[in-house]
Amino acid sequence: MSTSRINVAIIGVGLVGSEVISQLVTAANLKKTFAIVALQNSKKTLLIDPKSDGANALSDWKTKLTNSSQSALPLPELTSHLAKLGNHTVVVDNTSNDDVASFYPNFLKAGLSVVTPNKKAFSSSLELYKQILQAAATPSTSTGKTPLLYGESTVGAGLPILSTLKDIVETGDEVVKIEGILSGTLSYIFNEWSTPKGSTKKFSDIVKIAKEQGYTEPHPGDDLSGSDVARKLAILSRLIPSLRDELPQGYQSVATRSLTPAPLADVKDGQEFVDKLPQFDADFDALNSEAQKNGNVLRYVGVIDVQKKEIKASLEQYPATHPFATSLQDSTSTVAFTTKRFNKFPMSVTGAGAGAAVTAHGVISDLIKVAERRSTESDRPL
Amino acid sequence: MSTSRINVAIIGVGLVGSEVISQLVTAANLKKTFAIVALQNSKKTLLIDPKSDGANALSDWKTKLTNSSQSALPLPELTSHLAKLGNHTVVVDNTSNDDVASFYPNFLKAGLSVVTPNKKAFSSSLELYKQILQAAATPSTSTGKTPLLYGESTVGAGLPILSTLKDIVETGDEVVKIEGILSGTLSYIFNEWSTPKGSTKKFSDIVKIAKEQGYTEPHPGDDLSGSDVARKLAILSRLIPSLRDELPQGYQSVATRSLTPAPLADVKDGQEFVDKLPQFDADFDALNSEAQKNGNVLRYVGVIDVQKKEIKASLEQYPATHPFATSLQDSTSTVAFTTKRFNKFPMSVTGAGAGAAVTAHGVISDLIKVAERRSTESDRPL
Repeated sequence: MSTSRINVAIIGVGLVGSEVISQLVTAANLKKTFAIVALQNSKKTLLIDPKSDGANALSDWKTKLTNSSQSALPLPELTSHLAKLGNHTVVVDNTSNDDVASFYPNFLKAGLSVVTPNKKAFSSSLELYKQILQAAATPSTSTGKTPLLYGESTVGAGLPILSTLKDIVETGDEVVKIEGILSGTLSYIFNEWSTPKGSTKKFSDIVKIAKEQGYTEPHPGDDLSGSDVARKLAILSRLIPSLRDELPQGYQSVATRSLTPAPLADVKDGQEFVDKLPQFDADFDALNSEAQKNGNVLRYVGVIDVQKKEIKASLEQYPATHPFATSLQDSTSTVAFTTKRFNKFPMSVTGAGAGAAVTAHGVISDLIKVAERRSTESDRPL
Repeated sequence: MSTSRINVAIIGVGLVGSEVISQLVTAANLKKTFAIVALQNSKKTLLIDPKSDGANALSDWKTKLTNSSQSALPLPELTSHLAKLGNHTVVVDNTSNDDVASFYPNFLKAGLSVVTPNKKAFSSSLELYKQILQAAATPSTSTGKTPLLYGESTVGAGLPILSTLKDIVETGDEVVKIEGILSGTLSYIFNEWSTPKGSTKKFSDIVKIAKEQGYTEPHPGDDLSGSDVARKLAILSRLIPSLRDELPQGYQSVATRSLTPAPLADVKDGQEFVDKLPQFDADFDALNSEAQKNGNVLRYVGVIDVQKKEIKASLEQYPATHPFATSLQDSTSTVAFTTKRFNKFPMSVTGAGAGAAVTAHGVISDLIKVAERRSTESDRPL
């Protein structure tokens, strides 16, 4: 049994968390590299001796967690426990919880790395974001090494979007523009609804089907508000040095076009929202017809224009020949980077940008990067 | 002056090499992280004290290299010198030279990391490839750490294609199919020539213009033969565990459709080749017409089908609505990965896949990864 594996503490064991555990205990190279040392949900904590065979111990982790006599540890206690384990430890936050996100500076100050698909920490207030960056830039007093911080899955799930943007910035290239379809839900809705031939379907019917198929949040207004796209824009734009300080209130500072009809803004119930949406189909049809008149389709996009310092979640028209009109299917995401070097034609990444399996894929990719940089074993070459 | 920078030795200072140097000495964070300690072309070597300020010393590197009293060092001597420098040293091979590629096992055995856009080492014989992998998996006797090996720019220049494939493999996902337009030259030719409306241009005219604009090799037959695509397929397929041993002769073992008309196979002169190509336009037109009859366009693609163990560089028909028909412009490359997790719609990376600036971008991205894993300084967070 290797005693020099990277420890992994997992907070949040829902759809994404379960998939992360499943991927970690399935691949032979991952079992050799990582030891799961803690699982925690809102009720319980399961602590595991890192020197035990984590993989075998976790075959029935759901039962073990449910039956654990340890109620959920407060985050400061969990942190103290993890900091004493020896070897390097990563906290994986699979929640979408604000409290956990606000605790990242403390994880990092204790020398723990953080890997997360939780958008909250990077898309909320600039103050929290700066606290996190500072903690992640400060070497641990015990090891002399800085903890690491990765959140690939916060934008585009498993698609290599943030790593691509980081490479652009770190290699001295300069971002000119980022333009993308950042919400899988809105991708699906607009791919169904706005085609070069206009639409044969009602907007409200498509939203209804999307809800039934689980493509939307329980309340579809949470997708139509554009706030998920705004959060992703906050995360992307803050990785561009000249835009780091542009959004004091994070996603709430992004210029965001909401698709929720004003009279439905206060409808709290998702089903009631869907039931009332058909009243506004004529308004949506008018938008679509206008685009079609210009030979265009409508897409809900996120745009970052670096020179103008414009960051917007917006409904835009694109020619029927544009890749956003022709190349996307189903609920795929796509992000196009125009840079000083990639200027004639943008560099783009496209694919499934939502779903537990691909989100966990992004989390595991991040964990591998931490292992490459912090493993005490001789490294494997890739 | 930091004395714990990563040392960089650059072999080959042509278009790509010059751009690598230029990028390294331009960005402030790169100047802090890397010290250029050697430049070498076929005639001269310039050795630089790593403790000197490499960036300033290199403002007039071309003159200094030309005037160097040191004639080009044999690779074993260069290696001995580099291995004694202290700190970690990376050899960057910007040549397309077989002799340098064959020497990678020796660089690695001496504890030097290798970063390269040179396709030769990874796409030639399986024997050389295995020697390289073995050397890269063996910890250095002096440092206890394994040297690192990166070649992002060997496929798709600066596009994150190999890193994406490595993540897919390392996270335990499984590749089902890789399909891509891997040659910027052939991308340009087919985007110009085969459109949903057929072609208004002669194949030979497009090749002639491509040659004049510097899009082709000096001898366009080197592009039309498909061997560049075959080399990229060898590199990609060898990163897939079940295909590693499939190509004993590397790119020469790839099933490759040559577009060079048989009677021109022995024409050694590029201009003569272009002058004679119009004799075969009727044959090319017939191919295009047949595709058009099916509502298709022609594209020259690389395909890896993992289950069938099929690796081919091939001329294929695609529907006029396929992303390969609609989303590419100019000389852009694209690679689509269908995997166990990305199965409904492939994950794809698209953009400029050729050119010195974007190739150097990929080289610098690789160098940053080496620095993150081998720097003796406290790491910066990304």
